[in-house]
Amino acid sequence: MSTHRTTILRIETQGPSLNEFTGKAVAWVADSGVSTGLLTLFIRHTSASLLIQENAAPEVQDDLLDHFDRLAPEGPHYAHDSEGPDDMPAHLKAAMTQTHLAIPVIEGQLALGTWQGIYLFEHRRRPHHREVAMHLAGA
Amino acid sequence: MSTHRTTILRIETQGPSLNEFTGKAVAWVADSGVSTGLLTLFIRHTSASLLIQENAAPEVQDDLLDHFDRLAPEGPHYAHDSEGPDDMPAHLKAAMTQTHLAIPVIEGQLALGTWQGIYLFEHRRRPHHREVAMHLAGA
Amino acid sequence: MSTHRTTILRIETQGPSLNEFTGKAVAWVADSGVSTGLLTLFIRHTSASLLIQENAAPEVQDDLLDHFDRLAPEGPHYAHDSEGPDDMPAHLKAAMTQTHLAIPVIEGQLALGTWQGIYLFEHRRRPHHREVAMHLAGA
Repeated sequence: MSTHRTTILRIETQGPSLNEFTGKAVAWVADSGVSTGLLTLFIRHTSASLLIQENAAPEVQDDLLDHFDRLAPEGPHYAHDSEGPDDMPAHLKAAMTQTHLAIPVIEGQLALGTWQGIYLFEHRRRPHHREVAMHLAGA
Repeated sequence: MSTHRTTILRIETQGPSLNEFTGKAVAWVADSGVSTGLLTLFIRHTSASLLIQENAAPEVQDDLLDHFDRLAPEGPHYAHDSEGPDDMPAHLKAAMTQTHLAIPVIEGQLALGTWQGIYLFEHRRRPHHREVAMHLAGA
Repeated sequence: MSTHRTTILRIETQGPSLNEFTGKAVAWVADSGVSTGLLTLFIRHTSASLLIQENAAPEVQDDLLDHFDRLAPEGPHYAHDSEGPDDMPAHLKAAMTQTHLAIPVIEGQLALGTWQGIYLFEHRRRPHHREVAMHLAGA
């Protein structure tokens, strides 16, 4: 019988970084007993985002941070600057990546590839409490 | 019991802009009576897109438009130019943002954060009739 | 009654290109007999991605490839370069597009617009075997 369940995951961040939480998503799916279904992750913020990326080479993360800094640099050219120089670039980086992700569950396991990790992509400088809503539908 | 329902939302646009339709999505979910589930929004076009962004400061929208104009400027360098100078940039802006969004429903409410709004991001200059397919699964 | 089903689609690629597989997704949904539901596609890689784009004008695909080459060029400025000059740009292009897509099913049909096609966006130069996990929930 198909069921739906949800939970809120809380993640603390310390400045611009990719914060892996694959293990927490995997554990929640395993606990559910769902064999075939779909996991959806949704970040409840507009200055941080979600991303699936390679979890093998740590330099990939440095290059990702540099890349999005280059595409959305800090500077005096933004109309919205009341919340600090890193705020509008953070919204732009979020707009270029993902607010949500979805991953099929097959035979009780997330269908992630061998090198795929799930990351919360923090774009602000100050420490933040972030929330990710998780939804699992399946049977 | 888990159910699925769908509808088509029609939105009129007047040139490049972020068109908020959070209220329409919220109302449709409320009408459904679903308590736990997942809302999916899908835009049936390739020169407009979807985006969740801050709904508090209107300047954020100006900066978003400027940003994507800068990344995908109009110009003579496109192979596809038969539908006007704003057509290929529109496809590129759509490719860098979202064709679909999904938002969990928890205790009968969309799990949006306090400052998150749902937008149709129009990239073409002329007025357009746009369609967003909405799907709700839940119990 | 709501059901969930999954399958793995295998796609061979021959260098940077947009590889349409709309027909395979349409056929799988048709075979399922689902009338109302949601199709989710998930690519199990971080150097290729998914994209819905115009399927009418082939020049659009050339412009898309050029655009992402311009935003994520090859060069000596990457920390991660052990897997070849096209590897880190491939991860960046994947990060700027989609790891997954979802499309509502209405009256037994995918709710794609007239000009929308579903593409696997290959970012690496060498031929690759790629896998897309498909999930269908519906009734």
